Amino acid sequence: MNAQKRIAHLCGFVDEDRLWRRHMELAQIGALPSGGVNRQALSAEDIDARHLLIGWARMRGYRIETDAIANLYIRRAGRYDDRPTVATGSHIDTQPLGGRFDGAYGVLAGIEVLESLDDAGIETDHPITVVAWTNEEGSRFAPGAMGSLIFSGLRRVDEFSANADAEGTTLSAALKSTLDAMDTDRQLDTRPTFKAYIEAHIEQGPVLEARRIDIGAVTGIQGTRWFEVEVNGRSAHAGTTPMSKRADAITAAIDIMTDLRRIAEDPEDRLRFTMGRVDVVPNSPNTIPEQVRFTIDMRHPEQQVLEDRTRAIVARCTGPSGGCRVSIREVLTQPPCDFPEAIVARVENAANALPASCMRLPSGAFHDALFVARICPTGMIFVPCRDGISHNPTEYAEPAHLAAGARVLAATLVGLAEKDA
Amino acid sequence: MNAQKRIAHLCGFVDEDRLWRRHMELAQIGALPSGGVNRQALSAEDIDARHLLIGWARMRGYRIETDAIANLYIRRAGRYDDRPTVATGSHIDTQPLGGRFDGAYGVLAGIEVLESLDDAGIETDHPITVVAWTNEEGSRFAPGAMGSLIFSGLRRVDEFSANADAEGTTLSAALKSTLDAMDTDRQLDTRPTFKAYIEAHIEQGPVLEARRIDIGAVTGIQGTRWFEVEVNGRSAHAGTTPMSKRADAITAAIDIMTDLRRIAEDPEDRLRFTMGRVDVVPNSPNTIPEQVRFTIDMRHPEQQVLEDRTRAIVARCTGPSGGCRVSIREVLTQPPCDFPEAIVARVENAANALPASCMRLPSGAFHDALFVARICPTGMIFVPCRDGISHNPTEYAEPAHLAAGARVLAATLVGLAEKDA
Repeated sequence: MNAQKRIAHLCGFVDEDRLWRRHMELAQIGALPSGGVNRQALSAEDIDARHLLIGWARMRGYRIETDAIANLYIRRAGRYDDRPTVATGSHIDTQPLGGRFDGAYGVLAGIEVLESLDDAGIETDHPITVVAWTNEEGSRFAPGAMGSLIFSGLRRVDEFSANADAEGTTLSAALKSTLDAMDTDRQLDTRPTFKAYIEAHIEQGPVLEARRIDIGAVTGIQGTRWFEVEVNGRSAHAGTTPMSKRADAITAAIDIMTDLRRIAEDPEDRLRFTMGRVDVVPNSPNTIPEQVRFTIDMRHPEQQVLEDRTRAIVARCTGPSGGCRVSIREVLTQPPCDFPEAIVARVENAANALPASCMRLPSGAFHDALFVARICPTGMIFVPCRDGISHNPTEYAEPAHLAAGARVLAATLVGLAEKDA
Repeated sequence: MNAQKRIAHLCGFVDEDRLWRRHMELAQIGALPSGGVNRQALSAEDIDARHLLIGWARMRGYRIETDAIANLYIRRAGRYDDRPTVATGSHIDTQPLGGRFDGAYGVLAGIEVLESLDDAGIETDHPITVVAWTNEEGSRFAPGAMGSLIFSGLRRVDEFSANADAEGTTLSAALKSTLDAMDTDRQLDTRPTFKAYIEAHIEQGPVLEARRIDIGAVTGIQGTRWFEVEVNGRSAHAGTTPMSKRADAITAAIDIMTDLRRIAEDPEDRLRFTMGRVDVVPNSPNTIPEQVRFTIDMRHPEQQVLEDRTRAIVARCTGPSGGCRVSIREVLTQPPCDFPEAIVARVENAANALPASCMRLPSGAFHDALFVARICPTGMIFVPCRDGISHNPTEYAEPAHLAAGARVLAATLVGLAEKDA
């Protein structure tokens, strides 16, 4: 069989029903009455979910490894087994009111690829590893993407060991329970070497669904800038204070927010600009507000665009405005990450070969791939999700879309796992 | 002595020091470390304050009366003592973080007038009564202005008897404690007949101070309209959702609020328009807001202006806007109250005769006078307060301004207490 035929053969073994059943089975662990999932990092539910994955892996004879932050590596051997592994995966922890697909899909699609390789009788040159990264959501222990952050070497476990959840349990205690409970083949002391990493994920946005496209070849992860703006005026009686004598923080804030929306205009509709949080003091109907604080979340795939808009935003939010004092501080800076063209093209070609409709798009959300990209050639595959909704119990993806994404993942991984690739 | 000389003689007995000392003495009851006062209606502090007033009244031999809502009437006899009394007063309850002058001034200025009449050896034709209205602030038991509302016949005590404070004490229980504790001469079964009512008060706004004017001859109390606006959009991920696909409740609200400010523009600067409270759901930096609720407090002395602006506001806040659904409901309607020209002119003339600088202005805040005005010719006298600040421990008025207001009050009351006036 030539490479093309081998991939078509493999894709025939990707089992839509099995993949869907696995999603439903995993979603039982931490299931919410609303149909969603609450399975936070390193919880009893997370441990149960790890047991489920390990059980499936054991039945196929894959090697189970973990590391100091409890990332779970499920490794299918390659013909040249000492070579760097091709990797895929995502995370199995959820938000407190999470859905059944965010994260879970990337892990289950990876396992589906490994099993399809078995079923199709295909041996790859390089091993292939499915990773379940620990604590991507960050809802129980800050920060999020902890497993991939530590894997990438950007941070160390001991920096977070003392971080506690709402009940006062420390990360190190929760980590110990999880590591003790897992039946693994070995504990890695050093980072396994990845040849490449491909993460499959629901889009968590509306673009693919709106355009009726099956596969997103993700070009990178947008850069993000978070700001907090503070507008300080003077509170006074709503009935007695003439308009000309006011320093009304809400009217000043409204003018600023209107100008910021103008600054954020983008005819290409690539810039994302959100003022998600607004806090008014004292927030009483008959008192002129003395303070308004609001947040800005701005994202774009190009660093230069972020720099230019940031300059204009900071200028507008500094100094006096409408009789109030205005200040701004940047609270998060995450530069854009561009995935290598070679990886994006592989995903695109794999989709075209299926065939599945495909478009290139950047990721609006963060993912573990953002940090793994520091270490090895990295890419992502998006599939549509209903109404673009995620981080919500109503999150939904079509079984056929999940399967199409798994086939594109299979084709991409197998291509990368060839010794000359 | 002719009337003019008699009034000049009387005003010579208005004692700035005594009036100031009384403010400081009353402010000890419920004193806050910050310099303010917490003396809520029908509390132990309110009872202590009533004892203080009654003690002063007893020393002068004034008659002490109360009624079912515990309004306290301190009555100085007139030559024709069965004639309707000329009345003055205000309230001695405060906000939880209240000041030393709001309300207290009107009561203490009234007592100062009675004592000045004694000291000056003046007998008036009609009796003069100082009233301390119960529960003007409404912070412990809703609604505010309860004493004057019931006095005016607009409401009955039994409508409020079951209203409870934050600790679960009912109004009827608190009322009983207060009535039992007060040493009065008689309990009134029916409303005493007022010939006229004049209330002295700090302005609670910045106008008099800014113009360096001693006395405000209050022309009436502005009408008030309160609204709640609700903007409903759709929450979504801030990073993944293109601007063109959003139904962002905060951007829709900003546009509405901008338009409302335009609707509320008033070249005469008489309209007061405040959006004091803004609540955003879910109020998270990286989630597009699905709902914004905000309040409108609009006031103006002319009913027609309020009607016209209300029509424009309701039109703007009804139906779709910026991809969101918008609705508005009116939560309070208080028509303007115009004081009789004869009363306003009396206050103005009294100020001119002193002489004290004087201007006409409407009251931006509600007062007991708003309800007493339903029963008898009513007016108000304003004195400046620092920075227009009230309902705040830092509330402050100059002793000289308080005394000037008391002199204008004395002159006005004595004029009204003449049998041919």
